[in-house]
Amino acid sequence: MNLPASLEALIRELSRLPGIGPKSASRLAFHLIKADPEESAALARAIVECKSAITACTSCGAIAEGGLCPVCADPSRDRSQICVVENPRDVLTVERTGEFRGLYHVLGGVISPLDGIGPEELSISPLVERCERESVRELIVATNPTVEGDATGLYIARLFKPLGIRVMRIAHGLPVGADLEYADSMTVARSIAGRVEL
Amino acid sequence: MNLPASLEALIRELSRLPGIGPKSASRLAFHLIKADPEESAALARAIVECKSAITACTSCGAIAEGGLCPVCADPSRDRSQICVVENPRDVLTVERTGEFRGLYHVLGGVISPLDGIGPEELSISPLVERCERESVRELIVATNPTVEGDATGLYIARLFKPLGIRVMRIAHGLPVGADLEYADSMTVARSIAGRVEL
Repeated sequence: MNLPASLEALIRELSRLPGIGPKSASRLAFHLIKADPEESAALARAIVECKSAITACTSCGAIAEGGLCPVCADPSRDRSQICVVENPRDVLTVERTGEFRGLYHVLGGVISPLDGIGPEELSISPLVERCERESVRELIVATNPTVEGDATGLYIARLFKPLGIRVMRIAHGLPVGADLEYADSMTVARSIAGRVEL
Repeated sequence: MNLPASLEALIRELSRLPGIGPKSASRLAFHLIKADPEESAALARAIVECKSAITACTSCGAIAEGGLCPVCADPSRDRSQICVVENPRDVLTVERTGEFRGLYHVLGGVISPLDGIGPEELSISPLVERCERESVRELIVATNPTVEGDATGLYIARLFKPLGIRVMRIAHGLPVGADLEYADSMTVARSIAGRVEL
């Protein structure tokens, strides 16, 4: 028994989403078939509307609805600090802490020679321009603690330190609530290297 | 920083899908924002098209494109055997084995008093009608091996045996390739109870 073409197409499109394999895609497709027509129509509509409404902030690359994002548009934010992140979602993660009052810069990825991604593929020269235009004094690199994330951080440090900008990296170590016994040795090593005085 | 309304709406709609929590929904939404416009448009279109093209088979309740499903419409299938399953997806799972040449019947769920689902909420009376109309000799209950699935199987057995129909259940036991040592005791108990002669 072959699947109807429209169902095949829906499963194929759902499988293209990150973290959704063929089995999950099939489960989602059957859910949508069975769901209230209003529910599936609302999902389809939300995809189309979101795609047309959401843009990248013209200054930092975070999500916006045309023009600047709410952070860049907020005059009360500290313009001398820029937190450099990999993608627009990371902006929300940092914002949720409520601990950072500066601006952001979204790189759009990390340097990864194996995937053919060099500094030119990332939003690094716009960051240089921002730093030259605005009175930025500190960059806080918040790329993920992966080999590529670390390499990207080092690249940024080498590029911006000569411009007289302080380049910091967020701390890596044991997550709050974690158990030393179950932590991997890379994380423990990082937390020892990054020790602070009590 | 609040999320734009259109993005909030997309995350909310994605969270309604089974197995997609708020974090996955947010990851999927950001993927769709970043994706090729053609990819997200194709997904939205596939949802709408699938929803309008796919119907329930008027005889067995499996997925169809108007009227009968391919299995019910196939004159070469054995009409004396009906495999009773919980949902349309199970039909595909059984079909994929290539071992079953009879017809199907989709219950649309299982008897679950706690969720307010009794036999009347399921497609059981249409199954009685099918059995009266067609020369069905055997029902093979393939509900899931859960308390509700087993109870539903017993209910069907009590209902159909008096009509002179043989009611069977698919075998439960150790999955092929499994290791006895790691199997749960319910499964091992079932596999002993359901032992067959070598």
